[in-house]
Amino acid sequence: MISFLADGHVASPRGWRAAVAACGIKYANRDDLALVVSDYPATAAAVFTTNAVKAAPVLYDMALMAQGGDLRAVVINAGNANACTGVDGDAAAVAMARAVEQALDLPPNSVFVMSTGTIGVPMPVDKITRGIAEAATRLSPDHGLAVARAIMTTDTRPKHCAVTVTLPDGNVITIGGMAKGAGMIHPNMATMLAVVTTDAAVPRDVLDAAMRQVLEVSFNSISIDGDTSTNDTLLVMANGVSGAPPITDLASPAGAAFIAGLTAVCQHLAHAIVRDGEGATRFVTITVRGAVNNAEAKQAAMTIARSPLVKTALFGADPNWGRVLCAIGYSGVTVDPNRVVLHFGGMRVLENGLPLPFDEKAAHKLLDVPDITIDADLGLGDGSATVWTCDFSYDYVRINAEYRT
Amino acid sequence: MISFLADGHVASPRGWRAAVAACGIKYANRDDLALVVSDYPATAAAVFTTNAVKAAPVLYDMALMAQGGDLRAVVINAGNANACTGVDGDAAAVAMARAVEQALDLPPNSVFVMSTGTIGVPMPVDKITRGIAEAATRLSPDHGLAVARAIMTTDTRPKHCAVTVTLPDGNVITIGGMAKGAGMIHPNMATMLAVVTTDAAVPRDVLDAAMRQVLEVSFNSISIDGDTSTNDTLLVMANGVSGAPPITDLASPAGAAFIAGLTAVCQHLAHAIVRDGEGATRFVTITVRGAVNNAEAKQAAMTIARSPLVKTALFGADPNWGRVLCAIGYSGVTVDPNRVVLHFGGMRVLENGLPLPFDEKAAHKLLDVPDITIDADLGLGDGSATVWTCDFSYDYVRINAEYRT
Repeated sequence: MISFLADGHVASPRGWRAAVAACGIKYANRDDLALVVSDYPATAAAVFTTNAVKAAPVLYDMALMAQGGDLRAVVINAGNANACTGVDGDAAAVAMARAVEQALDLPPNSVFVMSTGTIGVPMPVDKITRGIAEAATRLSPDHGLAVARAIMTTDTRPKHCAVTVTLPDGNVITIGGMAKGAGMIHPNMATMLAVVTTDAAVPRDVLDAAMRQVLEVSFNSISIDGDTSTNDTLLVMANGVSGAPPITDLASPAGAAFIAGLTAVCQHLAHAIVRDGEGATRFVTITVRGAVNNAEAKQAAMTIARSPLVKTALFGADPNWGRVLCAIGYSGVTVDPNRVVLHFGGMRVLENGLPLPFDEKAAHKLLDVPDITIDADLGLGDGSATVWTCDFSYDYVRINAEYRT
Repeated sequence: MISFLADGHVASPRGWRAAVAACGIKYANRDDLALVVSDYPATAAAVFTTNAVKAAPVLYDMALMAQGGDLRAVVINAGNANACTGVDGDAAAVAMARAVEQALDLPPNSVFVMSTGTIGVPMPVDKITRGIAEAATRLSPDHGLAVARAIMTTDTRPKHCAVTVTLPDGNVITIGGMAKGAGMIHPNMATMLAVVTTDAAVPRDVLDAAMRQVLEVSFNSISIDGDTSTNDTLLVMANGVSGAPPITDLASPAGAAFIAGLTAVCQHLAHAIVRDGEGATRFVTITVRGAVNNAEAKQAAMTIARSPLVKTALFGADPNWGRVLCAIGYSGVTVDPNRVVLHFGGMRVLENGLPLPFDEKAAHKLLDVPDITIDADLGLGDGSATVWTCDFSYDYVRINAEYRT
C-alpha cells in the first residue's frame, strides 16, 4: 500500500537530514545551497545527461559512481551550472565534495555534487564552501522543504513529495524526493536535477535496476521543449534505516512494492516539472495505444509531445487532430493512417483516418482547461505508452527570449 | 554565368505558360487555383513528403511518376490540402488531373496535381474543375507571378524567381520556380510546395539526379519548426524548348552550369520560405565546420536550427552560446566540447569550449537585426554544412494557436 505524506520531502525517510545556506552565488536574499545527508552509508544509483557537453559535477559524479562505494550526502547549488568552466570548474566540483566531507567528517568519495543555473560563469568557490560549512551545522529532518526551494532556478515552485510503502511483510519504508526543472525538459535527463532518498535497504545493483525501470515511465516520459542540457542528473540513495529486510529481487512482492513506491515518487516529481514548464498553461497527458510495440508507442507519443505545432494548438485549446496525425506520421513508427483513432479530452475527432464532425465551440470549451488528454489508437498491435507534456505559450517565448537579460 | 531575372517566375523559361482562377475553395475574392503548362512534353522529377500520412494528390503523383512518362502540366489548389479525405479525396485528385487533360486536350497521365490548405475537409470538386476550365482559357507567359500568389496559404508574400544560365557552349537556358511555405517547414519536404520549370533539355534520370543533389543544399537545409506535413512536394520539369543540347552528364561543364542554376533557384525559394516563416523576425544562417564529415556537420546544424531554446534566444537577440553548444552536444554527432569555437554575428563568443568575455549590450545590438549568422567550428575534421532557419516569436505562437479559428 502506498500513501503520499502531506508535504513529504527528501528528509521524510528515516535517517535523512537536510540543510540550506544562502551563498549569494547569483541570487540575493535567498537560499541557493542544499545539503542532504544520510546518518548511515547509503547505496546509490544515478543516471546522467546524454549530452556530449557535460558539466563539471556530472563528470565528477560519473567517476564517483564508477568507484561503486556507498554515499553519505549530496550537495547542490543553484545559480551556476558549473558547465563550460574549464579546469577551474573541475576543481570547484571537487572542492564542493571535499568541503562537505570535511565539515561532516565523512569518508573520502562519499559526497555527490550537483549544480544548476547559468553556464560558462566561473564558480564562486569560496562563497559556496563557506555556505557548505554553515549548512553542515544546521542539518535537520525538518529542512526537507527548504532544500527543495534552494535548488530552484526558473522554477516557480518547489517540487517534492514522499510516500510510505507498506511491504507485504508489514514493514513500512519511506521514499522521498525533490526535483528542479522548468525549461529545457526532455527525456534522457534534460536540465533536470532530482534526488530520491529512502530508508529501505536495497543493494546497489538492485537499486540501479529499479531506478532505470522507473526512469522510463517518469522523467524519461516527459517533454517540455525537446532540448537537453549539460547538468541533468537523477540520484537515488537507500540507507536501510527502516529496518525492513533488504529488497534483493524486484520481481518479488517486496520488490514490486518498492518499484510501485519509487514510481509514485518519480512520476509525481516528473509531473510537477511539466506543470511548472516555462510558460506552461496546460498539462497534457498523451497516450498512444495499438502500436506494434511499446517502444513505437512511446516514440509516437514523444513525437506528438515535442511538436511545436501541437503544443501551440494546445495553448489555443484547439483539437487540431491534423497536427497530431502528422506528428505520428513523421515519428518513424509503423502506422496505417486509415486505422488511426484520435480523442482530444475524451472527444472522438478522428476515426479510421477520417475526421468526425464536431462542434468547434464546444470542443474549444472542453479543451480550455488546465489538464488535457490526447489519446491515439494506431489499431495495429498491443504497444502502448503514456507521456506528459505542456503547451507552448507566449510566456514560453518571453521567458526564453529574455532569460539572460 | 548565372543571372537572376527581375521578377522571374515559372513561366520565364521558354515554352511555359500559366493561368489562375478563383474557385472559392476556402478564401473569398482571391485566386486559389494555379495551372502551369508546357507547350511541349517535359521530362520530370519529383520528391514527396516522407510523412507516413500522405495527401491524396501525393499518392496520385507518386503513381504518376512511377509510370515514367513526360508531363505537360501541374495544377495546384490552395485552401484545401485534400488530406485525410478518404476515397473521395483520391477521386478528387484524379478529377483535377482529368479536368486539365480534357480542357487542354493533353494525353492521359500528363498532369501533376498539388493541393495545400486545411486537412480533413472534403474537396469542392465541382468548384475546382470549373476553375480549371476557366484557367485553361487564359494561359499566358505573363501569369507567372499570379500563380505564385494563387498557391499561398498562410504565406504573407509570393515566392518566385528565375535565372538565365549561359552554358559553356554559349547557349542560354532559363530556370524558373515558385514555392509556398510558411509554417511547418522542415527538411524532408515539410509542408512545402515547389515547382521548378526549365527550357533546358534534360533526360529524366539526369534531371532526377540533379534535383536530389540540389534538394540537399536547399529545401532540405531549412527548418522552421521541425514539423513535417502530408503534402510536401518538389516538382522539376524540363521541356527542352531553349534548343540547347541535352544535358546528359552532371559532371560535364554544361551539367555543372545547370546544377549551379538549379541551386540558385532552389536556394532562393528555400530562403524565401524561411524569411516568410510564421512569425519569423530574423533569418538565421547556421554554418557548422570542422565536423568529422559533412553529414555530421549538417546533423549538428539542423539540431541547432530546430532547438526552441536557440530560436527564442535569437528572437531576443541574445548570443546564447550555451544553448547552441547544448544543441550540438545532444545532436548525436562526434564532438569534443573543449575544441568548439562559436561565433554569433561574426563575434567570437566561445573558444575551446570556454566563453569569451563580451559586452552584452553591444552583442545584443549586433544581433538585433533581420539577418543573423551562427558559426560553429567543431575542430575535428573537414565536414561542413550550412542551413537556414528563423526565430520563434510571440507571433509564431499566436498564428499557430489561432490557425483554425
